[in-house]
Amino acid sequence: MNDCQQVFLAARPEGFPKLKDFGLRKASLREPDADEILVEIEFLSVDPYMRGHMQGGIYRTMKPLEIGDTLYGGAVGRVLRSRSPLVAEGEVVEGYLGWQSHATVRADSVRKIDATLAPISTALGILGMPGMTAYFGMTEVAKPRAGETVVVSAAAGAVGSTAAQIARILGCRVVGIAGGTTKTRHLTEDLRLHAGIDYKAAPDLHEALVAACPDKIDVYFDNVGGDTYDATTRWMNYGFRYIICGSIAEYSSEEAGIGPRHLKRFEVNRARMQGFGVAEYRPRYNEGIAQMAKWLNSGELHYRESISDGLETAPNAFIEMLQGKNTGKQLVRVKTS
Amino acid sequence: MNDCQQVFLAARPEGFPKLKDFGLRKASLREPDADEILVEIEFLSVDPYMRGHMQGGIYRTMKPLEIGDTLYGGAVGRVLRSRSPLVAEGEVVEGYLGWQSHATVRADSVRKIDATLAPISTALGILGMPGMTAYFGMTEVAKPRAGETVVVSAAAGAVGSTAAQIARILGCRVVGIAGGTTKTRHLTEDLRLHAGIDYKAAPDLHEALVAACPDKIDVYFDNVGGDTYDATTRWMNYGFRYIICGSIAEYSSEEAGIGPRHLKRFEVNRARMQGFGVAEYRPRYNEGIAQMAKWLNSGELHYRESISDGLETAPNAFIEMLQGKNTGKQLVRVKTS
Repeated sequence: MNDCQQVFLAARPEGFPKLKDFGLRKASLREPDADEILVEIEFLSVDPYMRGHMQGGIYRTMKPLEIGDTLYGGAVGRVLRSRSPLVAEGEVVEGYLGWQSHATVRADSVRKIDATLAPISTALGILGMPGMTAYFGMTEVAKPRAGETVVVSAAAGAVGSTAAQIARILGCRVVGIAGGTTKTRHLTEDLRLHAGIDYKAAPDLHEALVAACPDKIDVYFDNVGGDTYDATTRWMNYGFRYIICGSIAEYSSEEAGIGPRHLKRFEVNRARMQGFGVAEYRPRYNEGIAQMAKWLNSGELHYRESISDGLETAPNAFIEMLQGKNTGKQLVRVKTS
Repeated sequence: MNDCQQVFLAARPEGFPKLKDFGLRKASLREPDADEILVEIEFLSVDPYMRGHMQGGIYRTMKPLEIGDTLYGGAVGRVLRSRSPLVAEGEVVEGYLGWQSHATVRADSVRKIDATLAPISTALGILGMPGMTAYFGMTEVAKPRAGETVVVSAAAGAVGSTAAQIARILGCRVVGIAGGTTKTRHLTEDLRLHAGIDYKAAPDLHEALVAACPDKIDVYFDNVGGDTYDATTRWMNYGFRYIICGSIAEYSSEEAGIGPRHLKRFEVNRARMQGFGVAEYRPRYNEGIAQMAKWLNSGELHYRESISDGLETAPNAFIEMLQGKNTGKQLVRVKTS
């Protein structure tokens, strides 16, 4: 109980992260000072954005990660000790608590979780950052209208699966792109999308999109980057919106590929490409969570979690998630006893 | 007086248009029917968008051009005969009158020009479609704030020179990109931009932009397409806006190059890329012209015209404009006597 387990950055990855880029260590617990809380972490989230963070300071809102630092990341846990009036012992909180078994942080840096709403792990998934990314990205940035055709990449992932379902709920024709037959079946059977494209099996992604989108594409909600933009932008409708929500294909590559070429198509179709991140919407999480919980309870929204057991499995879970091996939200169960 | 001279599409160009893609012919004048006018054309405009139009129907708002059709294009002229109460004989009008000496068109398809405001040729340039493209593209789409850094490509061209000056009037630091020392000097001396970059002389366009834009780039107003996006997007600020106003570098090429790669920069900087065209703003031309005329009269706005004499010179003027040989607005004087 006096020990804290931590995963730290041992080396900056080159290309795909490897296990040797991570280290595991013990540290002593720090008791909370005034206005602080000590949290015992139950679940840890591994997310694509962390790949960029490992490289240094590419995100405005986050301190650059140095060699030897504990990995940064969202986590959910229970408050063991509190020296703040904001949070009581025993309450469940979510925040950027890091890849560790315990965290001592300011009480005003966490978000209290209503554990009666859904399992607390959802605070890292469909009712957390990835869910809010999907919700605000779709409803505030992409804004699809009923009847429009929406294409979502990484559609079996945490953000993509949620974004695609929200577009379906909004009355759109939704086509998901994922890798492998299992994931592609998941898109139509569990997520109830109109069509799923297995990019690993399709001989030509553009042709597959043409077949799946008879009315062309109005919104491309992209979590992948890489070459998919070429395949989608060649089939855009007038007023096309291209939401860059993630660029996982580029995170581990210094060599950026081709971009969305054919700018004359953007010009004549008055198309828009928009970079998006959820950080600015953090003050509106409650609004998003309320709507998402409603859809969850009515059965319109489906979610899946892949859970890896033990803090020491976090590096491997992270690497496999980057390689697309998970379906739905990838989590690490930190408190296994 | 009974003859009408016309330039017609003889063949669809492959790559850069050549003189043999155009033909010159005589046709007989058609007298106006009810609600029509007969216009004697004085100036004809050659614009980059026409290259796309020669290829077939890429513009929503225009009928595809067929082999044998008279070339489509903006022109200004004087009304010889009118059978409409809307326009009187002797009035000056502007409209899509085509590459010809005379046009018989519906009176409600043209715009009346106030010949006391400025020389009537400006109805095709700074007070016409290119000027309005610059005005609405800058003030309604790019919306630069005072103190921001704005980069404009093809900055010595009809649209670019105007867009760049509007950004300067709005209080921005403005850097223009053009080809050749004469044009680049024109940017700083006549247009009074903060810096000009000669892309033909700069060994590395990106490095030249870094040097010219110490506070990075907030707006890239692009009339060129091609590889300039790579050089500019690598130096974007948070909230970067990329206005695709033209893609002249792509008009004559089926082989689109690399696009604006590095999408993770778009993501983390919440950047936006927006295709734009002026067609939707046609109902607001009067508003734009009033503001532009004010800036012209106060001496804040400078314009230059390159004029080629004789309808038969139009194909060559068009080709040279596509090759960037003109400075300012390229016109053809149709009525030379």
